[in-house]
Amino acid sequence: MEQDKERIYKLCELFDSKEASKESEEELKELLKPYKDGSIGIAQINPKAGDIEYNASKIVKYISHAQNIGLDLVVFPELTLMGYPIEDTIDRHPIIVEENVKWLKEIARITTTTTALVGFVEPRLYNNLTGKKYYNSVAVLSGGKIQSIIRKSLLPTYSEFNDYRYIEPSPVVGSQPGETLGNFDVDKVVDGSKINLVNSKTYGISICEDCWNNKEFFNDTTLYSLDPIEELSKEKPDVFINCSASPTRAKKEQLKHNMLSFISKKYSTPIVYVNQVGAIDNSSFDGSSRVFDGDGKLLARAKSFTEQFLIVNPHKGLGKIYPLTKGLEQTLTEAKIYTLEYEPDLERTYKTIIQGIRDYFNKTGFKRAVLGLSGGLDSTVCAVLLADAIGAENVFGVSMPSKITSKESKSDAAELASNLGIHFTEASIKDMVETTNNSLQNLFKTVEEKWNCRYKESFTQDNIQARSRAMFLWGISNEFASCLPIATSDKSELYMGYATINGDMSGGFAPIADVPKTKLFALARWLNNNRHVKNAIPEAIILKKPGAELAIDPKTGKPLIAEDALMPYEFLDEIIWRIENKKEHYYDMLSSEFLYEKNNAVSKEQKIQWLDKFYRRMSTALYKWSILPPSVIVDSRSINKYDYKQPITSSGINYKGLSQDDIESKILSFMK
Amino acid sequence: MEQDKERIYKLCELFDSKEASKESEEELKELLKPYKDGSIGIAQINPKAGDIEYNASKIVKYISHAQNIGLDLVVFPELTLMGYPIEDTIDRHPIIVEENVKWLKEIARITTTTTALVGFVEPRLYNNLTGKKYYNSVAVLSGGKIQSIIRKSLLPTYSEFNDYRYIEPSPVVGSQPGETLGNFDVDKVVDGSKINLVNSKTYGISICEDCWNNKEFFNDTTLYSLDPIEELSKEKPDVFINCSASPTRAKKEQLKHNMLSFISKKYSTPIVYVNQVGAIDNSSFDGSSRVFDGDGKLLARAKSFTEQFLIVNPHKGLGKIYPLTKGLEQTLTEAKIYTLEYEPDLERTYKTIIQGIRDYFNKTGFKRAVLGLSGGLDSTVCAVLLADAIGAENVFGVSMPSKITSKESKSDAAELASNLGIHFTEASIKDMVETTNNSLQNLFKTVEEKWNCRYKESFTQDNIQARSRAMFLWGISNEFASCLPIATSDKSELYMGYATINGDMSGGFAPIADVPKTKLFALARWLNNNRHVKNAIPEAIILKKPGAELAIDPKTGKPLIAEDALMPYEFLDEIIWRIENKKEHYYDMLSSEFLYEKNNAVSKEQKIQWLDKFYRRMSTALYKWSILPPSVIVDSRSINKYDYKQPITSSGINYKGLSQDDIESKILSFMK
Repeated sequence: MEQDKERIYKLCELFDSKEASKESEEELKELLKPYKDGSIGIAQINPKAGDIEYNASKIVKYISHAQNIGLDLVVFPELTLMGYPIEDTIDRHPIIVEENVKWLKEIARITTTTTALVGFVEPRLYNNLTGKKYYNSVAVLSGGKIQSIIRKSLLPTYSEFNDYRYIEPSPVVGSQPGETLGNFDVDKVVDGSKINLVNSKTYGISICEDCWNNKEFFNDTTLYSLDPIEELSKEKPDVFINCSASPTRAKKEQLKHNMLSFISKKYSTPIVYVNQVGAIDNSSFDGSSRVFDGDGKLLARAKSFTEQFLIVNPHKGLGKIYPLTKGLEQTLTEAKIYTLEYEPDLERTYKTIIQGIRDYFNKTGFKRAVLGLSGGLDSTVCAVLLADAIGAENVFGVSMPSKITSKESKSDAAELASNLGIHFTEASIKDMVETTNNSLQNLFKTVEEKWNCRYKESFTQDNIQARSRAMFLWGISNEFASCLPIATSDKSELYMGYATINGDMSGGFAPIADVPKTKLFALARWLNNNRHVKNAIPEAIILKKPGAELAIDPKTGKPLIAEDALMPYEFLDEIIWRIENKKEHYYDMLSSEFLYEKNNAVSKEQKIQWLDKFYRRMSTALYKWSILPPSVIVDSRSINKYDYKQPITSSGINYKGLSQDDIESKILSFMK
Repeated sequence: MEQDKERIYKLCELFDSKEASKESEEELKELLKPYKDGSIGIAQINPKAGDIEYNASKIVKYISHAQNIGLDLVVFPELTLMGYPIEDTIDRHPIIVEENVKWLKEIARITTTTTALVGFVEPRLYNNLTGKKYYNSVAVLSGGKIQSIIRKSLLPTYSEFNDYRYIEPSPVVGSQPGETLGNFDVDKVVDGSKINLVNSKTYGISICEDCWNNKEFFNDTTLYSLDPIEELSKEKPDVFINCSASPTRAKKEQLKHNMLSFISKKYSTPIVYVNQVGAIDNSSFDGSSRVFDGDGKLLARAKSFTEQFLIVNPHKGLGKIYPLTKGLEQTLTEAKIYTLEYEPDLERTYKTIIQGIRDYFNKTGFKRAVLGLSGGLDSTVCAVLLADAIGAENVFGVSMPSKITSKESKSDAAELASNLGIHFTEASIKDMVETTNNSLQNLFKTVEEKWNCRYKESFTQDNIQARSRAMFLWGISNEFASCLPIATSDKSELYMGYATINGDMSGGFAPIADVPKTKLFALARWLNNNRHVKNAIPEAIILKKPGAELAIDPKTGKPLIAEDALMPYEFLDEIIWRIENKKEHYYDMLSSEFLYEKNNAVSKEQKIQWLDKFYRRMSTALYKWSILPPSVIVDSRSINKYDYKQPITSSGINYKGLSQDDIESKILSFMK
């Protein structure tokens, strides 16, 4: 029996690697016979947003396979046919909604004995429409027909989610007849069972957020009053199914794991959770679809960050648990409080970004990347990630020394490139900087004659260097096919606006924009220990203090160190972490001890200076956030503009607040 | 009596121009005595997002004035204390919500005999919270206390609006006691009247979107099932008040005017609509607050695009109608169908952008602008708008000729600058382009050795020119205080991706990113006819065919004309207009006649070629939209990323769709 299971999963993996044959399908069908009643194929696929034909081609292949091997059911992620998220596209180009319905109907026709759950955008096609024009729906297909429809009730509209912009929440939980396609309304709720019978088993089907609202699990603090799972449980389905498209973020695995386990245990009902995989723009979906049995115990879990067809039978104990990214398992039982410990999150971080890069390139048709290699940490980690994501042969690293650039920076960059096997060359920016400066000096003089506001000290020289480098990289991108330049800014520096517009922060993609500097150091060490090629990153790069090598520090005569211009990265990153994860404000932070303070003496004046600098710089960095290239969201919170929106003109916010007395006296002065 | 009214408005304007004195207030109070019962001051103010102290200073001044002149009521726009929109800021920095409550309580204390309606973000401070953490509320302040609270029920979440991200819709319409501040819940609805008594009159108060859901007016197609105005009408208030923050967009005035008139007439109840003015980032609020009497007739309307304190009494016919921007009045009675006629919208367009620029600069602390003057239409119109928005002395135009640049381009630019009175200089990019090319040729050779994918024809040369210019402009911005470079891309070109990254599309602000080229031509003519200085734009600039002067057309030996690279702008702009306003798709457009076709013979092949080119280019322009600098939304729809979101990786969308037969045969092929 156990041997049979092993063989089943071997054969399943054949399908994943596109090596399944008629023979292997026949063998699999035979082996699955004892598990047929209640068998489910979890189709963890990677769709393209709006590319219905591409998505349909996958759906059809998985359905065909499921039918060939005689499964009861095959389930796909949320909005599979359209890809999630599709955002406002459905409003401006309604034809793609019409198309997805046409495709859905044709896909229904190929279903015979296996039932398929396929997510799609459902137009609400009636006169006197109240509400938004669309539902986020799942169709239950079998016997050549659309048997029934399930509509999403809880619409996440926060962070990276914008469901409520163009989707109407369904007032009804669970299944409605297939004939209601496009014509469902609260006035037309069809009585009868809201769960679905497939062969001998009943299924309570919900969509993503619908299962994230258990009042008990969330300590009575929930986003919605309706709990669709609670509603479905009243009909006592044999199994819950949740079709999902849930991106990975730091600490989310812990939440998801425990919540799904809690639900299945609470209702003594197994839950099958099928998640999208792959990245769409800034959101990276981790897959890791899973099944918990009726006791809340994990029965099966699909791989992370890869497409997979996972066969399970929750009634007969059929399921395989593939590992999470290393380190994540140990976080599942941690207290819910976030910690600043990076180690358990590094493989997830790595895979999240790798997938983000790969899918951005694949889905936009780009193949190659070019980036500046400064010998510093940011560009180094970007180079490693790119090599692993799109292949070393598709990455070109360019060392672009100026007169400030040290010999070590050049040799470190060359060594890194050689270790990675990426292409490498050196191209001096000296001539460009000189010519630009010559041209600009005259121009500046002319401007100064009219405007009496020239800075005594400016960052103009620093920026000319960074922009000259970007000019080279964009030049290569323009001259060679399918080639994107890479923006190497990290999260700590973006918070501080310590990044040059049209310089290092410009590019077609920004791989590490959601990774703070101290985590990058940890990631660099992790990469050296865990990649197939060990120690690709020269130790010297990890040991050196970060600095942009754009200016000389007059005090030392050496290139300026970033921490001197900003503050210690360990301190900076903890401010960011406290704001993003604990929503702390200025005085919260001033009055509590930072990790940095445990090992370093920091005077109160110094701490105030750093906190003031942080808020001052962040307020003026908002514009830079708004023009940041596409990136991958990695952390539990980010500054990615598709995740976090703050008006640029909000630079007048007082993050410290005022006392009641101060407010009172200010009001009195306003009255004068 | 009429003379008194004239005098009242004279004295009101004194306050607006900050010239009110104790004496003028006394005189006003005296004149207002016959109008006191039911008198309302409409405080049309321009807040800063999140700058509570700044906003409070205005609120306090207006309340004091209202009390000094003995008004019954003074009403402020939606979320006045916080500024609208504040977006996700309240979630990440909850301290600003605490602050706005502290300020609100202190402001309440200064109210004596006049009642003030002040918008604020209300935290929902209870255990076991269901829903989002905040309400969008209005406090009714008088007698030193918060008398009652009104919460917004309908939350716009589409286009530029994101209310539902962090705001909970109120299940209860109308007024609840002041003691419920922060502790209101559906379980705790307090019985009693939902309208407010102020002296002798009752008021039904609602917030913005709450009054945009009349089923009759919108032909039974509404976004929400609840109609707060209908609910309030049941208690027969003497007046409706709507506190609003509603940005201007093309054709919106028509909708707003007719809807408010309809509501007041339907319920035989006057409506007072107070709107925010000023711009916050990409949204420009037009003010134009207004009052309709109980017959649906316009009684008063505040000025557009400027702060104002407008005094009205709907019961006694006190009110003054200030004009809309020229041309708009004639559109009010037009059929609802959008038209491509630009003329009536030009002054509104002008003022919308002027305000957008001015407030972006003011609210971020910038003062000066530098832009490239090519002698072409885009940079020309930008220069005029900048001169009018921030003052000619604060604008520097730089002509940056290359070897392709014609003499005329240089002299046209110089003439324009002189007409406008802006600063002007010339700075050749020849050296920079040459040096960059020299550096790049070697680099390209090295890359070519590794990557066998160099383009035979590329845009590298074009882009180097555009980027060299941006390098100059950003250099000036870095070297001189409070100076922003300007991105001059227009809407037509952004749709086509016909703009250079880090070149003409880079800048601190993009004034005309939502103005299509053909409208820009109309706007240029309008500016020449309507500005204080006539004909500032040289006729030659308006007459020349647009082209970037970045490359020579091998066919003509002259600089390439944009329309040859793209398609006729008249045709292009109609595609954009049809998609944005009528949601037409490929075949809709192929089968209907364009205005361009009325005057030009266009073969079907040609039309197909243009449409194909449009969709192909638009699909790859999505990335450029995502990194576009802040801009002003002008049209009824836009590509501004804070207004329209489409995944960049959705480039696989088939905008033509497929026939059912095609889909069927494709599905069969996928099954193989």
